[in-house]
Amino acid sequence: MSKEITSRSENYSQWYLDIVQKAGLADNSAVRGCMVIKPYGYAIWEKIKAEMDRRFKETGHVNAYFPLFIPKSFLSREAKHVEGFAKECAVVTHHRLMNDPNGDGVVVDPSAKLEEELIVRPTSETIIWNTYRDWIQSYRDLPLLINQWANIVRWEMRTRPFLRTTEFLWQEGHTAHATKEEAMEEAHKIHEVYTRVCEDVIGMPVIKGAKTENERFAGADETYTIEALMQDGRALQAGTSHFLGQNFAKAFDVKFLNQNNKEEYVWATSWGATTRLVGGLIMTHSDDSGLVLPPALAPIQVVIVPIPKPLPEIIEKAEEIEAALTAKGVSVKIDLDAKKRPGFKFAEYEMKGVPIRIGLGKRDLASGQIEVARRDTKEKNLIPSEGSIEYIVNLLDEIQNNLFKRAKKFRDDHITKVDSFDEFKEVLEGKGGFISAHWDGTVETELKIKELTKATIRCIPNDKVDEAGQCILTGKPSPYRVLFAKAY
Amino acid sequence: MSKEITSRSENYSQWYLDIVQKAGLADNSAVRGCMVIKPYGYAIWEKIKAEMDRRFKETGHVNAYFPLFIPKSFLSREAKHVEGFAKECAVVTHHRLMNDPNGDGVVVDPSAKLEEELIVRPTSETIIWNTYRDWIQSYRDLPLLINQWANIVRWEMRTRPFLRTTEFLWQEGHTAHATKEEAMEEAHKIHEVYTRVCEDVIGMPVIKGAKTENERFAGADETYTIEALMQDGRALQAGTSHFLGQNFAKAFDVKFLNQNNKEEYVWATSWGATTRLVGGLIMTHSDDSGLVLPPALAPIQVVIVPIPKPLPEIIEKAEEIEAALTAKGVSVKIDLDAKKRPGFKFAEYEMKGVPIRIGLGKRDLASGQIEVARRDTKEKNLIPSEGSIEYIVNLLDEIQNNLFKRAKKFRDDHITKVDSFDEFKEVLEGKGGFISAHWDGTVETELKIKELTKATIRCIPNDKVDEAGQCILTGKPSPYRVLFAKAY
Repeated sequence: MSKEITSRSENYSQWYLDIVQKAGLADNSAVRGCMVIKPYGYAIWEKIKAEMDRRFKETGHVNAYFPLFIPKSFLSREAKHVEGFAKECAVVTHHRLMNDPNGDGVVVDPSAKLEEELIVRPTSETIIWNTYRDWIQSYRDLPLLINQWANIVRWEMRTRPFLRTTEFLWQEGHTAHATKEEAMEEAHKIHEVYTRVCEDVIGMPVIKGAKTENERFAGADETYTIEALMQDGRALQAGTSHFLGQNFAKAFDVKFLNQNNKEEYVWATSWGATTRLVGGLIMTHSDDSGLVLPPALAPIQVVIVPIPKPLPEIIEKAEEIEAALTAKGVSVKIDLDAKKRPGFKFAEYEMKGVPIRIGLGKRDLASGQIEVARRDTKEKNLIPSEGSIEYIVNLLDEIQNNLFKRAKKFRDDHITKVDSFDEFKEVLEGKGGFISAHWDGTVETELKIKELTKATIRCIPNDKVDEAGQCILTGKPSPYRVLFAKAY
Repeated sequence: MSKEITSRSENYSQWYLDIVQKAGLADNSAVRGCMVIKPYGYAIWEKIKAEMDRRFKETGHVNAYFPLFIPKSFLSREAKHVEGFAKECAVVTHHRLMNDPNGDGVVVDPSAKLEEELIVRPTSETIIWNTYRDWIQSYRDLPLLINQWANIVRWEMRTRPFLRTTEFLWQEGHTAHATKEEAMEEAHKIHEVYTRVCEDVIGMPVIKGAKTENERFAGADETYTIEALMQDGRALQAGTSHFLGQNFAKAFDVKFLNQNNKEEYVWATSWGATTRLVGGLIMTHSDDSGLVLPPALAPIQVVIVPIPKPLPEIIEKAEEIEAALTAKGVSVKIDLDAKKRPGFKFAEYEMKGVPIRIGLGKRDLASGQIEVARRDTKEKNLIPSEGSIEYIVNLLDEIQNNLFKRAKKFRDDHITKVDSFDEFKEVLEGKGGFISAHWDGTVETELKIKELTKATIRCIPNDKVDEAGQCILTGKPSPYRVLFAKAY
């Protein structure tokens, strides 16, 4: 079965598409740029969602739901926002169909034209801040710490499952605060929540940093980002948390009476993470045999395969192991399909990234042993049946840790310091990855580098070091290095 | 605070709107017919969702996600479906906005007109069955037991929060089967899952039955429904499960090879329940003091209010109770706000429907007592502090049971047998509720009764009794009684 997918070295992009398809994660749909998230892919997203949702609630946030549609005029209220967001959108112009007077089907009823067009939300700052105006009068109404789980539509020209689709699923937090400091603290808090989910759950190391002015969210004063590195050396923006200043409060006239009875504009943040994380997960861990899943997100953590077939004593043993593992919170599948050979099943579960496979053979059982194969390293061991439950529970932890460590080593090996533009281009086209380089701090230089190389500044890293240097393009002075990369 | 809401006897409809607003469940939005679900209302929906989702998974279903948009032509593939669903829809005609050449804002870019319009899903049978065609080849691919949690848009003329909104949230199950029997069994299985959630979780008694041909889902061969009764004597359809026969398989050409290697069309079901359940919950239990929540769905199950204010020894006791209850899985809030009087807080938590309120007063504590008030009956008791944890845990169960019993008694008291059309009209306009009456089985009679009285046949109940009778309108023979009511 592994022969069915393209290898990374042959064609990385096709390798990714092959995994998405063969592991049953997503499918194309009849609507341009929109994917169908298949049950196995959705189960992974549900787990990411649950991990994020728990952390949002632990940090005092509540969920709510705002309308899918945004009146067209709202989008142009915040000047920068409209430039960044109000363009490639799905526009609802009518609210009725009618039987086609000249044929079989249905046509748009011209008499049902909307007075004002509605935009399918590309992000919800505008409709939410229009609502917050009614909810906030006094400092006693603050902070508002609200998140929503929703679908989003941005009319993308080039799409790729999970990484960039016209419709995608996400969460968007929208918070309102009485002070700048509190809003800033919130933006940082969520930046850290995203980091913990990516590293501790997805096993995907990320670099925390701030976006340059040019790469900021349209309408934000600061955008904090986490940047991951894919195996082809391209960066993936995995989540962003924005300090919005008073921009949306001013655009939607949201004021409050402070403790001194003085009227002030409200301070805001917004933050989002999307189904793109599933794409990042795939591209961080998977190999030429298929998907590799961190145990924390695997819909099936352990699969038990009878060898060569489901004999009664093997089934009995399998059910014993299943019961013991289930009691420890491990999700187990026993594959009793007698029509498929073990080798076929092995390849299938490898393709689906199941972290641990247990092979139960008659002879091994007789000698008190079971075969345990781990997906991450593909090692296979015969271990004593006695004590195997503890072994497996520990092995799941070890796999989770190993995947993160492995990805982190790859990422760390792919951060290269360069001090000239020639070197910059050489690393970019060869080794790839993040390039740590000096930049003169201007938008012009940033755009020029992008034009010449397609690389962008992924972030000004939080752990940047003060170090006087010269911009790789202009030679002008620079106080610290920033991280460049080609990105998804 | 209770004075702030209209009483049921004065204006039932306004009473409902008052509760939705004052309990903080939902708000109007800037988009016609679309509501904002506020955090407290959304927390209730999240709990309903979790209870349903768990039961779907326990019965072998998996979640997936299909596109928001449906190509216009899909809607007219299934002949009956188009009549029922393809009309009042949000239609996307363009995919880009541009700066208004004559002004400040943005306008639709006329060059970005879609070749084929996209419809915002009013239900997803068409796009899902178009996908199933690629997923189903052989009997080995069946059954497909898929559910999705999604937002839905139907352009409603008259809307009311939760009960009928242009956009709403729901789950929609779409299953595919090799045989008619299996599909029928599935439709009944979900009918029972819905019943259990309504009765055991929401505490809302329902009558199980089948819809008449006229009231069936557009494209279904059978629609099974659960019908609840609201306090104003109107019925509420709370969930439907459809046996779709081979209608959608034929419309989208979904065939499979059966075990005898013969090609057959696939059998289908679909089923949905929506945020409307929150409306049903409100109208089943609430009273003139506000919302009444069954403990199983209450975001806060127990609130502790210090009397008259949060003294240190009272806070200590409150935290002790909170810790003990939390350990038993009870959600507790301690209200330490020193700026609000206890009486104000009492009214506030009454309005929000918190099932149990504990009042902690200094003198009571000294004598080893705490005050426990239950929201359902408004009874207030001084109970010994010793053993209070068990008392409260049991009381939550008792409240859950009492709410169901009380609602069931009301419902049972409002099923009236009538044998003449005069009596029918009299009960309908006076007592209200379900009317059990004979009907001649024709669509014509059903529509005539609706036209004359606004009552519809809610269902042919599962527990109908064979009993020869005469149709109340036409006098023609009838084999059993059906249930009529005015409905939401």
